[in-house]
Amino acid sequence: MDKRIPIVQLFKAPVNALIDTNINVKGWVRTKRGNKNVAFIALNDGSIITNLQVVVDLANFDEELMRRITTGACISVNGKLVKSQGAGQSVEIQAEKIFIYGEADPETYPLQKKGHSMEFLREIGHLRPRTNTFGAIMRMRHHMAYAIHTFFHQKGFFYFHTPLITASDCEVAGEMFQVTTMDLNNIPRKEDGSVDYDQDFFGKQTALTVSGQLEGELGATALGSIYTFGPTFRAENSNTPRHLAEFWMVEPEMAFYDLDDLTALEEEFIKYLVKWALDNCQEDLEFLNNMIDKGLIERLKSVVNTDFVRLPYTEGIKILEDAIAKGHKFEFPVSWGVDLASEHERFLVEHHFKKPVIMVDYPKEIKAFYMKQNADGKTVQGTDVLFPQIGEIIGGSVREESYDKLMTAINERNIPMKDMWWYLDTRRYGTCPHAGFGLGFERLMLFVTGMANIRDVIPFPRTPKTAEF
Amino acid sequence: MDKRIPIVQLFKAPVNALIDTNINVKGWVRTKRGNKNVAFIALNDGSIITNLQVVVDLANFDEELMRRITTGACISVNGKLVKSQGAGQSVEIQAEKIFIYGEADPETYPLQKKGHSMEFLREIGHLRPRTNTFGAIMRMRHHMAYAIHTFFHQKGFFYFHTPLITASDCEVAGEMFQVTTMDLNNIPRKEDGSVDYDQDFFGKQTALTVSGQLEGELGATALGSIYTFGPTFRAENSNTPRHLAEFWMVEPEMAFYDLDDLTALEEEFIKYLVKWALDNCQEDLEFLNNMIDKGLIERLKSVVNTDFVRLPYTEGIKILEDAIAKGHKFEFPVSWGVDLASEHERFLVEHHFKKPVIMVDYPKEIKAFYMKQNADGKTVQGTDVLFPQIGEIIGGSVREESYDKLMTAINERNIPMKDMWWYLDTRRYGTCPHAGFGLGFERLMLFVTGMANIRDVIPFPRTPKTAEF
Repeated sequence: MDKRIPIVQLFKAPVNALIDTNINVKGWVRTKRGNKNVAFIALNDGSIITNLQVVVDLANFDEELMRRITTGACISVNGKLVKSQGAGQSVEIQAEKIFIYGEADPETYPLQKKGHSMEFLREIGHLRPRTNTFGAIMRMRHHMAYAIHTFFHQKGFFYFHTPLITASDCEVAGEMFQVTTMDLNNIPRKEDGSVDYDQDFFGKQTALTVSGQLEGELGATALGSIYTFGPTFRAENSNTPRHLAEFWMVEPEMAFYDLDDLTALEEEFIKYLVKWALDNCQEDLEFLNNMIDKGLIERLKSVVNTDFVRLPYTEGIKILEDAIAKGHKFEFPVSWGVDLASEHERFLVEHHFKKPVIMVDYPKEIKAFYMKQNADGKTVQGTDVLFPQIGEIIGGSVREESYDKLMTAINERNIPMKDMWWYLDTRRYGTCPHAGFGLGFERLMLFVTGMANIRDVIPFPRTPKTAEF
Repeated sequence: MDKRIPIVQLFKAPVNALIDTNINVKGWVRTKRGNKNVAFIALNDGSIITNLQVVVDLANFDEELMRRITTGACISVNGKLVKSQGAGQSVEIQAEKIFIYGEADPETYPLQKKGHSMEFLREIGHLRPRTNTFGAIMRMRHHMAYAIHTFFHQKGFFYFHTPLITASDCEVAGEMFQVTTMDLNNIPRKEDGSVDYDQDFFGKQTALTVSGQLEGELGATALGSIYTFGPTFRAENSNTPRHLAEFWMVEPEMAFYDLDDLTALEEEFIKYLVKWALDNCQEDLEFLNNMIDKGLIERLKSVVNTDFVRLPYTEGIKILEDAIAKGHKFEFPVSWGVDLASEHERFLVEHHFKKPVIMVDYPKEIKAFYMKQNADGKTVQGTDVLFPQIGEIIGGSVREESYDKLMTAINERNIPMKDMWWYLDTRRYGTCPHAGFGLGFERLMLFVTGMANIRDVIPFPRTPKTAEF
């Protein structure tokens, strides 16, 4: 039979009915070894990290054919599936017919030997999904995305597609990428010499969004609970292992949620995702645990089984000040009102509490204008979920639903609101308490894979001076 | 109790345990009517199109409070859930406590009366999700997106995030949006006066992608079967009910699929999505069937229960030529080699076969360079799925896996491949038969909602001169 069976079905599903029957598998050769009588081909088809061993009795196969089967070649194998004699694998296939779809010249194919550096693999980003490491990461990326959709679907949230091209500037945050169809060699200008955006595609200046939150609030104040999940952009010139110019973000927004509802959802959400990884990505996680980060699986389990701490910012400052009084040294100063540095967050999470911390009630001066103001006049209902190793994985808040308070915050910050009339309408007409948060998907991917560089958890990273593939 | 119950749970889940208990609901007032003794408030919270009737005994409530409850106001209601006396609704709530979160000034709130035009609702796109029509569409949009993810997940496909910012030009298709961080008032130039893209963010000219297919092929030739689902961009200056500058596209790509596998997947996929809508969106579909398109539900059912026709292009031409010979008039000429016009496709689908048609084996001259060439030397293994009313809903093909044939096609078309070395590597190293297709998500949404204008099936449409909200 020629109907291909994905290799994952030979290792994850019950295969007893297939044992001693003829099957067909297709995939790429990872390695070929053997002696003058028999060859062993490790075949991978991407459906699972596990290779299927193809046993080739060389007496039955043409020498020239076998010579062409090298690492990276794509082949189709018909043969009998049998229980494996070797250790560590349950089944193997005894080849009866082999067809070569595509060779891979050993002289030039870049994935010959194991142990390439991550830097080199980034240069061949078009081929790196064929490696064990990046195959595992990409399969887990799929699983985390699907878990996100399933979590929200089951809770009655609606996936709400906020626009990527925007004429508004959410939070006036960071640098934005401009989007234009104007001829850059010959930009249309007005009489005063300024750029004539009337002649651009949208008739005004547009850019790539830095957040779907404000449009998400439009969704939540109509549909109840929504989430966005899509690409987001920052044109920051940051060449760090934590920054991408194009990354994926999840932004749920919920009508009628207060601070307790919000932090409960944040905790439930992350635990659901991490548990999904543990339950559905065993083979890939075991590989990453062995090859990338020996503490990975243990760390994931600890998150699932731990109650996250709720820590008001003011209490957090006290803990840090106490630590300083007892002799702990920080690089950056600590006092009420400062934006905590990574070292402070890590002290609280990894040293003091030894578990994830949801910090709440931040000074209003260090948080965004739309956060709900507390009665103390000093703090707002912002939340940051702080994780071991990776720091902030979620930022969220209850939103200020009072039109007057929101306008005061906007005026205090001199935020230009001329294009934001539609956002203010949510507070003008049937305003409601609501809350939301943002999860950087690649931050999550760093956490669940144990990878160190954010360029290695997205298929084709976009960073300053890099837009390959 | 103050823990809010989403209204959907009162109409879709078994609620017997809640009858005669006190519950809390929160939402927006759709209408208020009644007499001097009792008021009836239709309350909607977006979780379902059905309103919950709130029965208010006016003897127990302050007149001033009741005056402030108008269409669009946001309120919280505590009261007893009872079986409804009225026709058409199963339960209602007898109000015991009402709190107003936000009023909606009847003088200015734009959604006062029913029957706004679609054009007017586009102008208040930030509020239109609060209407029955757009609530229904947005909930169905969620369902279709989740069905897409679930379909592929269950088949072992991996969601593969291809980049939106690209330095390649897929198919050299249509106009692209440029992405830049350069100061348009003062563009850096080289000595020869041309734009100095070295100084742009990515160090080269970049644009928003028109398709993730080529990167998707990188995924499929490593992971087996992948799909993309994300925003895609066309800077075409087309002001039609069928075109958006920013739209969502689904692009699966499968290693080891031939033409039969491909068309089988296309048919199975669409039927799965339409069946999902019928099974999971009854209330919203019934509303759209009543208000927008009386034939909607029947048309959806017919697609699920019909075998799609496989029609080679050459046979399609014969059918059209026969029709012309018998006196049928078309505006555009028909002969082997022409790109079929909408009138031709509709004749085949709506008049001749009266069912969806998957046309295959097109003349190579009218299809893209990457399609697999047939042995006849004239046709390629392209497929278009043609639907009643909306025309092409899917375009796909088997991909040419032969490096030499692909290069010949590229050279015949003078396609600049200088930035495409990575794509060619898929044919150079371990090439494999593979296939894929693209589904325009908003085209699907038009089909499943019965809406006529593509601007009305996406939350915030981007079209020439329009980038509001």
